[in-house]
Amino acid sequence: MQPKTPSQSFTTVTDMVLPSETNPLNNLFGGELLARMDRAASIAARRHSRRIVVTASVNHVAFNRMVPLGSVVTIEAQVTRAFNTSMEVYMDVWVEDRESGERTKANEAIYSFVAVDETGRPIQIAPIQPESEVEKERYDGALRRKQLSLVLAGKMKAKDATELKALFED
Amino acid sequence: MQPKTPSQSFTTVTDMVLPSETNPLNNLFGGELLARMDRAASIAARRHSRRIVVTASVNHVAFNRMVPLGSVVTIEAQVTRAFNTSMEVYMDVWVEDRESGERTKANEAIYSFVAVDETGRPIQIAPIQPESEVEKERYDGALRRKQLSLVLAGKMKAKDATELKALFED
Amino acid sequence: MQPKTPSQSFTTVTDMVLPSETNPLNNLFGGELLARMDRAASIAARRHSRRIVVTASVNHVAFNRMVPLGSVVTIEAQVTRAFNTSMEVYMDVWVEDRESGERTKANEAIYSFVAVDETGRPIQIAPIQPESEVEKERYDGALRRKQLSLVLAGKMKAKDATELKALFED
Amino acid sequence: MQPKTPSQSFTTVTDMVLPSETNPLNNLFGGELLARMDRAASIAARRHSRRIVVTASVNHVAFNRMVPLGSVVTIEAQVTRAFNTSMEVYMDVWVEDRESGERTKANEAIYSFVAVDETGRPIQIAPIQPESEVEKERYDGALRRKQLSLVLAGKMKAKDATELKALFED
Amino acid sequence: MQPKTPSQSFTTVTDMVLPSETNPLNNLFGGELLARMDRAASIAARRHSRRIVVTASVNHVAFNRMVPLGSVVTIEAQVTRAFNTSMEVYMDVWVEDRESGERTKANEAIYSFVAVDETGRPIQIAPIQPESEVEKERYDGALRRKQLSLVLAGKMKAKDATELKALFED
Amino acid sequence: MQPKTPSQSFTTVTDMVLPSETNPLNNLFGGELLARMDRAASIAARRHSRRIVVTASVNHVAFNRMVPLGSVVTIEAQVTRAFNTSMEVYMDVWVEDRESGERTKANEAIYSFVAVDETGRPIQIAPIQPESEVEKERYDGALRRKQLSLVLAGKMKAKDATELKALFED
Repeated sequence: MQPKTPSQSFTTVTDMVLPSETNPLNNLFGGELLARMDRAASIAARRHSRRIVVTASVNHVAFNRMVPLGSVVTIEAQVTRAFNTSMEVYMDVWVEDRESGERTKANEAIYSFVAVDETGRPIQIAPIQPESEVEKERYDGALRRKQLSLVLAGKMKAKDATELKALFED
Repeated sequence: MQPKTPSQSFTTVTDMVLPSETNPLNNLFGGELLARMDRAASIAARRHSRRIVVTASVNHVAFNRMVPLGSVVTIEAQVTRAFNTSMEVYMDVWVEDRESGERTKANEAIYSFVAVDETGRPIQIAPIQPESEVEKERYDGALRRKQLSLVLAGKMKAKDATELKALFED
Repeated sequence: MQPKTPSQSFTTVTDMVLPSETNPLNNLFGGELLARMDRAASIAARRHSRRIVVTASVNHVAFNRMVPLGSVVTIEAQVTRAFNTSMEVYMDVWVEDRESGERTKANEAIYSFVAVDETGRPIQIAPIQPESEVEKERYDGALRRKQLSLVLAGKMKAKDATELKALFED
Repeated sequence: MQPKTPSQSFTTVTDMVLPSETNPLNNLFGGELLARMDRAASIAARRHSRRIVVTASVNHVAFNRMVPLGSVVTIEAQVTRAFNTSMEVYMDVWVEDRESGERTKANEAIYSFVAVDETGRPIQIAPIQPESEVEKERYDGALRRKQLSLVLAGKMKAKDATELKALFED
Repeated sequence: MQPKTPSQSFTTVTDMVLPSETNPLNNLFGGELLARMDRAASIAARRHSRRIVVTASVNHVAFNRMVPLGSVVTIEAQVTRAFNTSMEVYMDVWVEDRESGERTKANEAIYSFVAVDETGRPIQIAPIQPESEVEKERYDGALRRKQLSLVLAGKMKAKDATELKALFED
Repeated sequence: MQPKTPSQSFTTVTDMVLPSETNPLNNLFGGELLARMDRAASIAARRHSRRIVVTASVNHVAFNRMVPLGSVVTIEAQVTRAFNTSMEVYMDVWVEDRESGERTKANEAIYSFVAVDETGRPIQIAPIQPESEVEKERYDGALRRKQLSLVLAGKMKAKDATELKALFED
């Protein structure tokens, strides 16, 4: 299969924070943001694979910055690496201040998806060809994150996760 | 502050999978389950801390088993360890077959929460005193997962994450 | 069919009261609680019958205590008696104060459900074998409530409702 | 206070049954109809009292007829009797077939509401002056239903419920 | 086909403005009102045609008056004219003050719908026979609005829109 | 005030069509799309004005193409012209086929918004400086559409709408 670039799956989802989505401090609920990110990421995964996709895992999400009621939130998602039938989607989440228009990063998140056929069976997808520096860096990191996932799920021994192990040896 | 046991924050959320929550394969959307788990986990975190709590991170979620339309889903959440102002919540998610009543595990998930006062400032919470074998094991693992979170967020160097590093040295 | 105990259908649904579910006094809408109770009760009815179930009636619900925004609400439902193809589900609804953790009863409610096959036709279900004192008391009351339902719906004459009539003769 | 007629609070709520509101048999969920009826009834109660109103109880709802996906459902609500600070709202629910336009009654339901001030304290409301035959009949029945409610809630002894008792003595 | 009158499709939808439907000024979101009007208008279109109907266009909606949180909003919809397979639905939207009960018009809106068969193909519908003065006036205006729609969509030349042109020649 | 370009308010909202948002033909409900467009357009209006904005009118929306369940829908919105305190937002709506990735235009829509202060009073906004050919054409058309709006609302006589009148004189 022909490789695709991350920009071919680039997806922008912009929306406001409404009163029904906020916690007692008037900030966006974590769970609501997790669900929105799942929708954005699944569109990116679909654009890469042109298949039905299902969420396989959430690798890491850190909520670094509260997102107040009335903010405009922009989620930018793109596929950073494909592994046979699965792919990693990296997201940058931005919050925009109404008055100044200033945009600050609220968090990054990494989900992975599997492409499936109509019966739910995993199906081969195109590889990723990273272009920019950031894309290459995220492409390299994706393998370490995949190993970490397998170790955490008990499907790989820590000592066999060679890419990951290197991190702890410096 | 007096330590509390994990069972003091134990929370059960049971609900059905409705048509509006399913993907094209008629299974529960990943994003919908992430949002439900956030609500269950935040109730557990609140029961431990008796404070307003905000989602700090999602550490790892693997969707191992599809959850079909019409299933009954049960999320069991409890606080496994507290660190000064934050706490780890561990969840087991079960799917129950309507006809047989058989219950199988769909996935495990780990979120963390920070307890805050009315202005959003982090506030000290009670430590955890694990009791059962499973509780002790999860309590020990929580420190490694916290180090991993810090490393992934670039707030700790891999070589200083002593608990975590040990994993890769066997 | 083998009788089942009420505890075999015991169901716990825990959730928070969010801003979008509250009335102008910042308390949970009655209608929202009625809908949540219907979901909890239908899960209990399904656990007893292992069938598709449909709501047949709401017998009585008294909203004794307001449920403020931000409360944790727990609905505990179980089948108290089965009558051929229908069953009564009794619910206790608890409200938990965030700060003290104190749990007070908000209300009790009684719904009934019919078990049906895939075409919607009523289908025989297992009888109930009550165990505890409360279970026995609710089991006995269920017959009186069923007669009351039939009288109110004009399907039974008041003078033939022998169990019910006894109430008014003391 | 000047009495008002039931027609002064008459309220019509018409809506469709959407896919997200249906059970596995493709009929409207009981809980969804309970919530819609609560909204319709509270508008009627508000029109009678011109106050904030809160749901006090659901007296009886029998789901006599399934409401299929795509139906048009019309709820007609009006206040049938007022008791100092509370009032009974009677509802007739109609289902309209898309093709023939034929309208059949799906069920009747009776809720009661309390009028309150901004602090939630019960407040006096106008009495009801029934006009038509049906209005007079429902006005008379309302007192028996109120007594029944008090008996079921353990706030009145069955033998003191004189209106109700008469029913069982014929 | 036998003509029908506008009153045969008359539809009333009454509902409250809830907190989750309001903007930062505590007024009903425009988008929420547009969606509610679409539901009301489609019921009127269905009542006229007894067919599945799909929204074809929104001709004009002016939001003249803000609709505050807690208001009761009533949408009255009826078909004003039918053109072979399509029909115009005219709506009057009223806002009711809780305390005084005073009803003021919030806006008027005009949508059009096409009647279709189960495969989505347009299908012939009954013509409209207007009765009252207002109905006749709206019936006449409907043709000008249809021409305007065609001109705006580039499907008719302005100079051929004879009814419309007359407007600008006085 | 400094003029701004349309591209400074450019907003992209991408989302999927879920089962709960579809009509009996399995296409996106018109009302749901109207609501989504209102959210997208209000973000564009906010980006231009940096103020609270409220929907003033919907000028014209034609639903030219059905949007099937499972499609990815992209709304692109930008401010085309500002008039003192109000502004016109033009939207292009695209539907993307999952398998081919092919993007076709589903419809165009024009809404207008007013910028207001915290008390809801209209407030002056920056003018628009169009750049591209399409932007200039839409900028010119906006004045005709504004006159049309005023004529339809009875606030301007047809014969005084000079820009609009010219259309009918060719």
